[in-house]
Amino acid sequence: MHALIIGAAGMVGRKLTDRLTGGARLQGAAVDRLSLVDVITPDAPEGFSGSVQCLQADLSDAGTADKLVAKRPDVIFHFAAIVSGEAEKDFEKGYRINLDGTRALFEAIRHANLADGYRPRVVFASSIAVVGAPLPYPIPDDFHTTPLTSYGTQKAICELLLSDYSRHGFFDGIGIRLPTICIRPGKPNAAASGFFSNILREPLVGQEAVLPVPETIRHWHTSPRSAVGFMLHAADIDLDLVGPRRNLSMPGLSATVGEQIEALRRVAGEKAVALIRREPDAMITKMCEGWAPGFEANRARSLGFTTEDSFDAIIQAHIEDELEGVS
Amino acid sequence: MHALIIGAAGMVGRKLTDRLTGGARLQGAAVDRLSLVDVITPDAPEGFSGSVQCLQADLSDAGTADKLVAKRPDVIFHFAAIVSGEAEKDFEKGYRINLDGTRALFEAIRHANLADGYRPRVVFASSIAVVGAPLPYPIPDDFHTTPLTSYGTQKAICELLLSDYSRHGFFDGIGIRLPTICIRPGKPNAAASGFFSNILREPLVGQEAVLPVPETIRHWHTSPRSAVGFMLHAADIDLDLVGPRRNLSMPGLSATVGEQIEALRRVAGEKAVALIRREPDAMITKMCEGWAPGFEANRARSLGFTTEDSFDAIIQAHIEDELEGVS
Repeated sequence: MHALIIGAAGMVGRKLTDRLTGGARLQGAAVDRLSLVDVITPDAPEGFSGSVQCLQADLSDAGTADKLVAKRPDVIFHFAAIVSGEAEKDFEKGYRINLDGTRALFEAIRHANLADGYRPRVVFASSIAVVGAPLPYPIPDDFHTTPLTSYGTQKAICELLLSDYSRHGFFDGIGIRLPTICIRPGKPNAAASGFFSNILREPLVGQEAVLPVPETIRHWHTSPRSAVGFMLHAADIDLDLVGPRRNLSMPGLSATVGEQIEALRRVAGEKAVALIRREPDAMITKMCEGWAPGFEANRARSLGFTTEDSFDAIIQAHIEDELEGVS
Repeated sequence: MHALIIGAAGMVGRKLTDRLTGGARLQGAAVDRLSLVDVITPDAPEGFSGSVQCLQADLSDAGTADKLVAKRPDVIFHFAAIVSGEAEKDFEKGYRINLDGTRALFEAIRHANLADGYRPRVVFASSIAVVGAPLPYPIPDDFHTTPLTSYGTQKAICELLLSDYSRHGFFDGIGIRLPTICIRPGKPNAAASGFFSNILREPLVGQEAVLPVPETIRHWHTSPRSAVGFMLHAADIDLDLVGPRRNLSMPGLSATVGEQIEALRRVAGEKAVALIRREPDAMITKMCEGWAPGFEANRARSLGFTTEDSFDAIIQAHIEDELEGVS
């Protein structure tokens, strides 16, 4: 079983690599070959007995996609993208990386399919940014995609391409609309949504964190562990059960910021909560109000995708996976 | 007022040209300059006092879009596309014409906008093919786009691009999801949906027509006259009222084939109905069952888009517009 991860140096890519090199199987088979690709060279995983290739490459560069497909990986995980803020500021770069890069991959696979019948599983990381305000709560599975960012537009277009290429039999695609990932490991970053993670991650290790929005803001979350679980399940699932609608809103946990804080209080106590400093920011608050409050995700749940059922569990997953079980 | 019609040799393009050269105003101004473009040279309109340029060009050829935009038309009607059957059979041609051609137009406008602030109104002809079965009846305005053809995929992608380019202020776009046009003038054609028009148009002039599906099949119709009316209204409408969701399912008439036939009986009598020959075709029936039975179209109606309220009126429009008032 040969797996290719495009965007392997990103957070989900690294965690998926860990799971695959740690013994997770794909479609019932052990992974004995791993191709890791990103715009910065991905780290080679430690302690993996199979063969690994780590490659620095940009999918939107001419020839890259053909090169990746030439080795005929059985499963392709495609996570590569520039983020929302950058795609909004640099219109051309956003379309080049997030749309043309993906289309180049799909075209390379189609040409290989026409050449020799090659037909890999393609797991594509999409986003809840494909929907745009005003939004109902919960958002039904058949709600339209009217994104309010170029990033969301590019993801929505790639979803449509994925369905059409799959329908024609060029590959077996599935698109995974990820909730916001919480608790994101690492350092606080500049993303407007960063505070959802910051207000839990930093207090858990005794550091202050800034909360720029009211506690009433409701949003849609899943843990890094669940996100990787989605990708593994997407690689395995019987696509006949999924049918022609190949893009699925993943289950998540809908919670207000207040509910996040109450979970932190239960798990780590009052001293952790006291480290959250309120610095209201009108602009971030306004952005948040346009974000998805939560999805029904009935189709994904019925297809066996699972996630945490409380923020206590999301925090616990972080403590186990990032803090060696100690908070 | 300079109007550019891309796809001017098609049915809607020709009828819109007639309306514009016949005195229809755009945004309150008389049209004194008309650029007509298609892959076959459009006919020059007769009796028009303004300047006309008729151009044979393929929007997907390098340089074509820049050339069309160089003259800075005030309103651009973009109808050019290859049809559903052809886009399905010739995958590459469908994406080249229906997606890349449209994107080339949008990019040419964006570059002109960046150069000198040019910001035309762009009216894009989309299609009910952006939705795919299983479909509710009526289909709500916020129903998701999960097309089951490459043509529908390409239209759905262009809708997303149109919204995003408009949101960035590169142009003022509006996408018009046309119902099936009935009664299509001209000869019977090979399209699977052709019978919806054939069973009315041919009997109205004493000719036989074949009905390949049961009378229970329900579909979504508008007249050529209304379709042109949609385009004119789309060119005029205040886009602040439309907001960021720029693609609108047009109003239409939801009718079963049986209801179409009853209207024919009322308008043209039993002798016309007797000319409909039933030749059941299982494949066409199956295709029809996947087509849109009808939309709510509440947003478009509230924005002033109007259409016929009975099939009698659709037949009457055909008699007036195509048969000089005589059936």
